[in-house]
Amino acid sequence: MEKVYYFDNAATTFPKHENVYKAMDEANRDYAVNAGRGAYALARKASEVISETRQQIMELTETENVAEVVFTASATLACNEIFGGIDWKKKRTVYVSPFEHNATMRSLFLYQKRYGFLITELALDEKGMELDQEKIRFQFMREKPDLVVMSHVSNVTGYILPVEEIAASAKEYEAIVVVDGAQALGLVPISLKNSPIDFYVFAGHKTLYGPFGIGGFIYHSKYRLKHMIAGGTGSDSLNLEMPEEGTVGYEPGSPNIVAIAGLHASLEERMTYLKENADYFLDREKEMTEYLIRQLKKIFGVTLYLPEHLENHAGIVSFNVEGYQAGEVGMILDQDYHVAVRTGYQCAPLIHKYLGSVSYLGVVRASVGRFTTKEEIDVLVDAVREIAEG
Amino acid sequence: MEKVYYFDNAATTFPKHENVYKAMDEANRDYAVNAGRGAYALARKASEVISETRQQIMELTETENVAEVVFTASATLACNEIFGGIDWKKKRTVYVSPFEHNATMRSLFLYQKRYGFLITELALDEKGMELDQEKIRFQFMREKPDLVVMSHVSNVTGYILPVEEIAASAKEYEAIVVVDGAQALGLVPISLKNSPIDFYVFAGHKTLYGPFGIGGFIYHSKYRLKHMIAGGTGSDSLNLEMPEEGTVGYEPGSPNIVAIAGLHASLEERMTYLKENADYFLDREKEMTEYLIRQLKKIFGVTLYLPEHLENHAGIVSFNVEGYQAGEVGMILDQDYHVAVRTGYQCAPLIHKYLGSVSYLGVVRASVGRFTTKEEIDVLVDAVREIAEG
Repeated sequence: MEKVYYFDNAATTFPKHENVYKAMDEANRDYAVNAGRGAYALARKASEVISETRQQIMELTETENVAEVVFTASATLACNEIFGGIDWKKKRTVYVSPFEHNATMRSLFLYQKRYGFLITELALDEKGMELDQEKIRFQFMREKPDLVVMSHVSNVTGYILPVEEIAASAKEYEAIVVVDGAQALGLVPISLKNSPIDFYVFAGHKTLYGPFGIGGFIYHSKYRLKHMIAGGTGSDSLNLEMPEEGTVGYEPGSPNIVAIAGLHASLEERMTYLKENADYFLDREKEMTEYLIRQLKKIFGVTLYLPEHLENHAGIVSFNVEGYQAGEVGMILDQDYHVAVRTGYQCAPLIHKYLGSVSYLGVVRASVGRFTTKEEIDVLVDAVREIAEG
Repeated sequence: MEKVYYFDNAATTFPKHENVYKAMDEANRDYAVNAGRGAYALARKASEVISETRQQIMELTETENVAEVVFTASATLACNEIFGGIDWKKKRTVYVSPFEHNATMRSLFLYQKRYGFLITELALDEKGMELDQEKIRFQFMREKPDLVVMSHVSNVTGYILPVEEIAASAKEYEAIVVVDGAQALGLVPISLKNSPIDFYVFAGHKTLYGPFGIGGFIYHSKYRLKHMIAGGTGSDSLNLEMPEEGTVGYEPGSPNIVAIAGLHASLEERMTYLKENADYFLDREKEMTEYLIRQLKKIFGVTLYLPEHLENHAGIVSFNVEGYQAGEVGMILDQDYHVAVRTGYQCAPLIHKYLGSVSYLGVVRASVGRFTTKEEIDVLVDAVREIAEG
């Protein structure tokens, strides 16, 4: 295939490290059997890899002995299992950040239709496009939160939300706090050990640089989720109730050992860097995105959608070009320059009304990754310049 | 690793065809991006592979233009999406076969607890361990079915259920018919074109010889399922409702293109055989299982759990050895003979009470696959003989 300049890392990071591909192929060939369901050597090997991968995630989030890792097939399913597991009859007031993705919003909306609770957006400083923490404390005081849902990093503006601080405010009211870390885990450091966050969602195929087919959440809560998905667990099979002990009941069906092996390899490789410097990947991405921002700012007719303070920003640069709809820019970038970006609304239903991007039918989103180079950024910037200069 | 004699194909077929491994590695390296979410070349390539794989499944089930293929991450999730999508307020009477797996039973049980409908087992001829079609017609007459749920092939006894015939009886009462084909599709021929079956569930990693992480169901019904899982669909993103058009609303989140590429390769390879002879793989498996059965029958102290008529049987041979619990036999087979079987209840909560296997704490299940040889069967049989002769 022709060389592609890939700037859709916020959808899926690509490529992955060579080790990920190798580990998946090896798992496929050597031990892609049903883990823990049969007491034979291959099944035990598969179980070991799963258990090691849980350990790695715990290490990354500093949750050993204080939380459990639940694997699901995707971050979307993790959000659904969490919201589907809440006893809504007792919950009246839900706060969401305006940066939420449809993985959280549409899932919440399913239950809102059934139970009629209130969904309120956390206050946004519309000038700086960052959350207004003081106003949020005031919101909570006026209307006590039962549940607070926040993305850790916005998939549209790259804004790193102050999830710890807002979680702490929410906990004063004993709210459940859910953080969607799909765009964050492995990139933005998080320590859940003493954190007020109850559920932290992750996606294997994004900032963790693992494959599709594996995601999940860190269960760091005394709140007991009901089971919203049921099936075989390889345990207590004559009982139609899902197991109540531990978190096995949130993982029905055969575990995807090949995807888990890929995530395992990715984490192993990443942890060697992150142990030295927890900001290692974040620093590199910031360097690249700030370069991209500087270059795009020089182009007349380009509007950027960024948070006010770049220290609260990572990886994602959304923009529009005057005179073009977002989708048109994407099409030209693809066809004339082999540059891959994502255009439209990025499954984020709330933030675009603040950005003023609806008249462009969304934004052009360029998201950098671990392997993005300055040379690739130059190709993107030159292309945008040519489009803008018409 | 040491040579393993693998007889756990009913859990996961292993190994797969070399093409599957190659296709997955290629997808990983070349186009593992978000399909259909960005209008760039790699994303279009991913979309094409997905669309071709849907076509293959339609070809295999003869459903072109009469049904749609919904991909989910697993058969378990497919069952959950179907049962979670039914408007239970209007359904009172559910029939299930006694061969059901917890993927259907536990999922149904979630809704039974909430809505209180009746679950009745389809009549079994307990002597022959096959469904009693005449009695079932009588059951339906006495208590009209709203929903009928059947496995196509029992994952414990290998019995091929007469799903077409029972579906036809059920349709006289306008029941919804769900068939769990996890142990069947790609092995036991099915034509859904003029079939009364509404939803046919499949698992990529079992009889389809694809990878983990991909399953789904064939939507061959006028019944409109509600959405029980929600999330981003890359379409109509500002709308919190899941899309009502078509089946895209049943597939939230990023499609697992690597797993789909593996399934695609498997289907491509299999279809060349199945086009010549729809029974190709079934015939071969029958030959192997019948050989296994003949050999096991010669061993004193071995009890086999089979349907009366071997023409209604495929792939799976469950048994016990007098004087041993099922798990003990499995452990000895693993440790002393490197033979991998599955023991226990196989996530099948109903059938064991008829089999009389509960006193053994389940059964020893040996399941053959496409690559099982007579020589491997001889190793298994010799091992069982040594155990039985103590």
